[in-house]
Amino acid sequence: MAEPQTVPVDVLEDRVRKIFEKSGVRPESAAAVAHVIVAGERDNCKSHGIYRIEGCLRVLAAGKVEPDAVPEIFDQGKSVIEVDAKGGFSNPAFFAAKDTLVKRAHETGIAALVIRDCLHFSALWHDVETLAEDGLAALSMCPSYAFVAPAGGTKPLLGTNPFAFGWPRVDGHPYVFDFATSVAARGEIELHRRAGTPIPEGWAIDKDGNPTTDPDAALEGAMLTFGAHKGSAISTMIELLSGAMLGEFMSKEALDFMGRTDLLPRHGALVLALDPQTFAARSGRDPLAEGEKILTAIGAQGARLPSQRRFQARDKAMVNGIALTDSELAQLDRFEAQGLDALNG
Amino acid sequence: MAEPQTVPVDVLEDRVRKIFEKSGVRPESAAAVAHVIVAGERDNCKSHGIYRIEGCLRVLAAGKVEPDAVPEIFDQGKSVIEVDAKGGFSNPAFFAAKDTLVKRAHETGIAALVIRDCLHFSALWHDVETLAEDGLAALSMCPSYAFVAPAGGTKPLLGTNPFAFGWPRVDGHPYVFDFATSVAARGEIELHRRAGTPIPEGWAIDKDGNPTTDPDAALEGAMLTFGAHKGSAISTMIELLSGAMLGEFMSKEALDFMGRTDLLPRHGALVLALDPQTFAARSGRDPLAEGEKILTAIGAQGARLPSQRRFQARDKAMVNGIALTDSELAQLDRFEAQGLDALNG
Repeated sequence: MAEPQTVPVDVLEDRVRKIFEKSGVRPESAAAVAHVIVAGERDNCKSHGIYRIEGCLRVLAAGKVEPDAVPEIFDQGKSVIEVDAKGGFSNPAFFAAKDTLVKRAHETGIAALVIRDCLHFSALWHDVETLAEDGLAALSMCPSYAFVAPAGGTKPLLGTNPFAFGWPRVDGHPYVFDFATSVAARGEIELHRRAGTPIPEGWAIDKDGNPTTDPDAALEGAMLTFGAHKGSAISTMIELLSGAMLGEFMSKEALDFMGRTDLLPRHGALVLALDPQTFAARSGRDPLAEGEKILTAIGAQGARLPSQRRFQARDKAMVNGIALTDSELAQLDRFEAQGLDALNG
Repeated sequence: MAEPQTVPVDVLEDRVRKIFEKSGVRPESAAAVAHVIVAGERDNCKSHGIYRIEGCLRVLAAGKVEPDAVPEIFDQGKSVIEVDAKGGFSNPAFFAAKDTLVKRAHETGIAALVIRDCLHFSALWHDVETLAEDGLAALSMCPSYAFVAPAGGTKPLLGTNPFAFGWPRVDGHPYVFDFATSVAARGEIELHRRAGTPIPEGWAIDKDGNPTTDPDAALEGAMLTFGAHKGSAISTMIELLSGAMLGEFMSKEALDFMGRTDLLPRHGALVLALDPQTFAARSGRDPLAEGEKILTAIGAQGARLPSQRRFQARDKAMVNGIALTDSELAQLDRFEAQGLDALNG
């Protein structure tokens, strides 16, 4: 078997953009989607890297995402900005509204971005990191598919509901976390199923609500939240704030709408941006210098900050390029030549 | 032993108010503190009920809280409102600024309240619940004392950092959660120490960073966060957003400032208020009716919503009064007659 080849980040981004254009996505949206997918690959975050291309092409082929959607911004000059993705991918909508969100957060101290009606496949860390690079603290959350039971419950109702936070650092990469509020990802249970190994206790319950370590029973039953009732409460908050509050789908409705679980979900998302300089102004302290104190102290204990491995992979990829296997490169060739037709190959 | 006596809620609130006035607290502040303490007792939330009176009197006696502080509001008409508690209790500061926060959130969709330099002893649920009663979704968080190690760390750095959320419901009590981001409360470890029983695994590490079930070793070492690295990330976020971002103490500095652990901490707090009607307006959906769907579905699974037991206790107390033991009543008598002098008795 050949050694993995390395591809420069910008070259890979260009290839992925062409794949989406070939698949009928309008150029601006193709560029946004390619940027975020390659950011995942660059960070060695393989579950959100080029692996996602096929899933995106499948929703395009199924007609469940609008390839021509032009995001529309609604801004009444207040602290809530809305962008309607109009059934398109979430990323072009975020990029379209980002500058307005940043400007407003700096003006008023805190601003919210509502993303409506988007096909959501990407990790949230990209959005909060982008805002942190503009000097803002940011929170982001969204529903997903109803695969998770609430604490004390027996049936799927909540999504794996990711929760992300970003904080600007004085030097180098921001403090960023982004995690599912389920104890594990659904894909991890699937991997155990294929390997014929039991899943750890505490990951899931069967269809009758009993604890199970059998991956088949877990997939028929429900996953559990991290942190028992506390994680369940946070996951419920995410359904309320980024589903009900926006008048967008919660995880159960997202699943009902798509009617199948093998396509990426369509729903909304909520992003909050806070300007530390506004919040700290009256204190006379520098909020970012203050933040460094605790972040440095965490590192001094030998503890790892979230996203640290991702940033290390990124720094390496920016210099050396991204290592891809022959089979990954062959798939890119096929997608680039055939677009959606490659799915039938 | 005599049966517990029941005291009407308003009668108890009046007694507690008099205790704080007798102890030198200005009348408006005494009323605010009494209201929140009796709300805890009413909800059978004993750890934040009249048990707290003695702790509050001790910080007054130690001169570590300003009894005469008049909260000052700074409002520039933007989305961040500040109230300086001026070293007084947090509750009068929150009550002083609450109406401005509510008004601003309704006007702009989202608003933040910064509470500066307050003595903080109360649960956060009271604040988010109050805002939910005005139709707002609300988040609240604050640091505390550095008793908790970050995930992968060995030394205390984070506080038990509570995180609270409120969501208005169409009928009846709001959806409210409020929990420490440590896996257990420090008081629970103390109870094990007194009883001579081991603490559960996963609660704490000893001073060398090794897991321990010995309560003495745990109290000398560090507590752990709920939900492993995810809970640790959330606790760090709370340090950044409600400490560093406000230019107020983080948990380590709060502990250094007070110089001892038996007094309640002084720091800031952050409250976010979001108006669901503003966020949902363009969707044509009723956000509160949407929220009912998931909250009802959780209940239909037989799962308990957070705060449910508290609301049941409240409903009962509002009709029957609050049951207090002879020794609790005797302590109230003593505090009421002697104020701070009762501490020397």
